[in-house]
Amino acid sequence: MTRLSQTRLLITAGATQEPIDTVRFFGNRSSGLLGCQIALAAAITGIETTLLLGESAPFPTSHPRLHVHRFSTTRDLEAKLNQYFPSHTTLIMAAAVSDFTPKGGAKEEKIPRGSTMQLELVATKDLVAELSKSKRADQRIIAFALGNSDTLEHIAKQKLERKNVDAIVANPLETMDASTITATLYCKDGRTFAATKNMSKTAFADWLISKLEDICS
Amino acid sequence: MTRLSQTRLLITAGATQEPIDTVRFFGNRSSGLLGCQIALAAAITGIETTLLLGESAPFPTSHPRLHVHRFSTTRDLEAKLNQYFPSHTTLIMAAAVSDFTPKGGAKEEKIPRGSTMQLELVATKDLVAELSKSKRADQRIIAFALGNSDTLEHIAKQKLERKNVDAIVANPLETMDASTITATLYCKDGRTFAATKNMSKTAFADWLISKLEDICS
Repeated sequence: MTRLSQTRLLITAGATQEPIDTVRFFGNRSSGLLGCQIALAAAITGIETTLLLGESAPFPTSHPRLHVHRFSTTRDLEAKLNQYFPSHTTLIMAAAVSDFTPKGGAKEEKIPRGSTMQLELVATKDLVAELSKSKRADQRIIAFALGNSDTLEHIAKQKLERKNVDAIVANPLETMDASTITATLYCKDGRTFAATKNMSKTAFADWLISKLEDICS
Repeated sequence: MTRLSQTRLLITAGATQEPIDTVRFFGNRSSGLLGCQIALAAAITGIETTLLLGESAPFPTSHPRLHVHRFSTTRDLEAKLNQYFPSHTTLIMAAAVSDFTPKGGAKEEKIPRGSTMQLELVATKDLVAELSKSKRADQRIIAFALGNSDTLEHIAKQKLERKNVDAIVANPLETMDASTITATLYCKDGRTFAATKNMSKTAFADWLISKLEDICS
């Protein structure tokens, strides 16, 4: 792994939207705030950073080392990851990918108001698992796991293995609507880093970036 | 109907979100931009304006006569409409209400990634139709109809009758992702006002507010 000064960081934040019809979609409440703060912290530290940001997320504070591109659907995010990952050394996958998309794609009309609607959804591709299969020896991937506090360690460790990533940030569900975060970082080699409890998201972003060299060594 | 100087405007903008589980929701792509511009145009004109705004919409330009409250679900929007409508004379219903919500409410856990998901949705209450039943003689309601250009006039006129509102803004689907709008206003008394084609949304907002006295007379 290259040192921090040679790191080129790709980070995803915000949520994918899977269209159901011309106006409605299947979405995720993720605001993209935490991912944007991590991206900004990286840029401020001196790392050239590319941020892939969900289209409903507010635009982040600008910085000359922070380059922002928008994504919409999971398929769109996949295309942009394939485009940008080869020129980066580290991927932090903070985006909330919908995991499901309407079977057969979106209806081409607005579905009229009615008494009921049956919606059949199928799995979207596991983007992180796909990328980790093809990553180069000099590349690292850090993913996020979101879950209830009592099962989160288990979910995170399973995800670390299943997705074959270098580290997982285990992020309690309560984080979504809070200004603070109590996260733990599980590395592929078995090391665990626990962040201070109830850190502000800004402080957590700085902490995660300060751990990059450690995580990615 | 009171004159413009006595108008107290309530306007809704943005989209409702119906939770499916702890993170996912059924939503609508409406950005709330047009509704925010109408609200701002009203405040600038001298009208005391209350804006009920979907939680994912960006915060509008502030103005001392513009008072903003956020809503989340259709049920939340309903509660806020019941709270604020009695103290207002005119309601412009520009929000995109989801029309459907998951049967039985949201799951209390994050549904795990899987191969398929069956989602059964049921109709939400028709908020505009409900409000128009109980509105006072001095109150007016203007709703929006969104549809494909070729069927829009029909949809708008049907909606005017079914919802028993005072006017409908017929808004082509193409408007959603555009900076311009080609809208027509259909009034309960049979009058029709066509806005200039491809107006900027800001100019349309001014035009609609300038028509308020006419529409609501």
